[in-house]
Amino acid sequence: MSTVSVIKIGGNIIDHPERLQAFLNDFAALEGGKILVHGGGKIATSIGDRLGIESRYVEGRRITDEATLEVVTMVYGGLVNKRIVASLQASGCNSIGLTGADGNVISAKRRPVKEIDYGYVGDISTSGVNAPFLLQLIQAGITPVLAPLTHDGKGNLLNTNADTIAQEVAKALAAFIPTKLIYCFEKSGVLRDATDEKSVIRKINAALFQQLQAEQVITDGMIPKLTNAFAALSAGVQNVIIGRAEDLPLLIEGQKGTSIS
Amino acid sequence: MSTVSVIKIGGNIIDHPERLQAFLNDFAALEGGKILVHGGGKIATSIGDRLGIESRYVEGRRITDEATLEVVTMVYGGLVNKRIVASLQASGCNSIGLTGADGNVISAKRRPVKEIDYGYVGDISTSGVNAPFLLQLIQAGITPVLAPLTHDGKGNLLNTNADTIAQEVAKALAAFIPTKLIYCFEKSGVLRDATDEKSVIRKINAALFQQLQAEQVITDGMIPKLTNAFAALSAGVQNVIIGRAEDLPLLIEGQKGTSIS
Repeated sequence: MSTVSVIKIGGNIIDHPERLQAFLNDFAALEGGKILVHGGGKIATSIGDRLGIESRYVEGRRITDEATLEVVTMVYGGLVNKRIVASLQASGCNSIGLTGADGNVISAKRRPVKEIDYGYVGDISTSGVNAPFLLQLIQAGITPVLAPLTHDGKGNLLNTNADTIAQEVAKALAAFIPTKLIYCFEKSGVLRDATDEKSVIRKINAALFQQLQAEQVITDGMIPKLTNAFAALSAGVQNVIIGRAEDLPLLIEGQKGTSIS
Repeated sequence: MSTVSVIKIGGNIIDHPERLQAFLNDFAALEGGKILVHGGGKIATSIGDRLGIESRYVEGRRITDEATLEVVTMVYGGLVNKRIVASLQASGCNSIGLTGADGNVISAKRRPVKEIDYGYVGDISTSGVNAPFLLQLIQAGITPVLAPLTHDGKGNLLNTNADTIAQEVAKALAAFIPTKLIYCFEKSGVLRDATDEKSVIRKINAALFQQLQAEQVITDGMIPKLTNAFAALSAGVQNVIIGRAEDLPLLIEGQKGTSIS
């Protein structure tokens, strides 16, 4: 094993079984060390609704109270994670599904209460990632599949953003081995024109990022994604790529998507 | 590591958070190699009820249809398994929660349809247990926590009896290392008088088992448990012990419960 790819898929893929299956086939076929980090998708909300658990939001941000934590533990750590693992096994990819509690893979701090009490939400740092254990698994030919859940070491599971998990895991691994970080989402990459999938910006460096922000080509949700990408690069990650889940094999090869360096 | 103990706890403990916590404290403190196998408990039924999924029974046996499989995957593989792992981590026991799909730990065959179609139920054999991987984890200081779910290698998770998992895992490990199998349940052991917790039969061998059956001292659910225990011994398991979860440390030492040899 000479490199590791940390690949994140979002809820939009999780919510579409056929797209998920196609993605997992591609993922299973990738050579070399790899880790899959998955988001949650809408299924947690729909199961929460069916269980009569109201999703509470404060200032547009979801609050993870005890009942919500139960739902995400079931859905992210159970249903979504185990289905992915069973499917990868069927494709000949020996994988293992993990929350942060499993093998103490990712420990986190419960977010401090300031203006808002987010509830059971975990903030993580690179030092909370058990990179040696992840590397042992990969070395043994087993692909870790990480659910967006961490733990506080005091017996509590914590809801944690999957993008952040992917980033911190990549940063932690980069101290040991050349590491790529690939964010798969619903667009072909960072677009110059949000309505034109062909307007992918193929390469972004720090100077271009500044310029694109100034020109307001990059706005909203893409700014934190790219800010995080640059933070990952600064921490030693070799390459960050953003693109469509359907293009995974080409993203890895650098033939599609946006490459950040 | 010179021996491994495979310890099974049933749903009656899972359903009582305080008893579960006390048990996990005892389990965490046990020295030597160990594996925890947990049942499901009533929580799957109550969550299924809240989701409007009817539990279907044919001739008194629960049918695992697709909706039920989703519920048990969420509850056994997610909620119950991850809570146990997070709690063990808090007690300083580095553990990892696994279904049979994770690391291909237990592969199973979907039960063939004869008079009854049990649905997504998996039958396992000793050869389906990935004992080398379990031993690698234990050797690395990580305690496996097994949910009562297996997989068929074709992408399907399967509901599988936890007693059977404990037995087959113990048999598979016994080919590599001296292995004990401990069944924790709500009684102090095999009782001579079902109403008297003090009437524990401390040792049962094959001849006594025959005799106790003939005398109808042992009936109902205890017969398959003991039959399985003797099968495990025949397959090389060193010792099978049955007793109360609350007595775990003493069961391991052979100072309480019923020892089958």
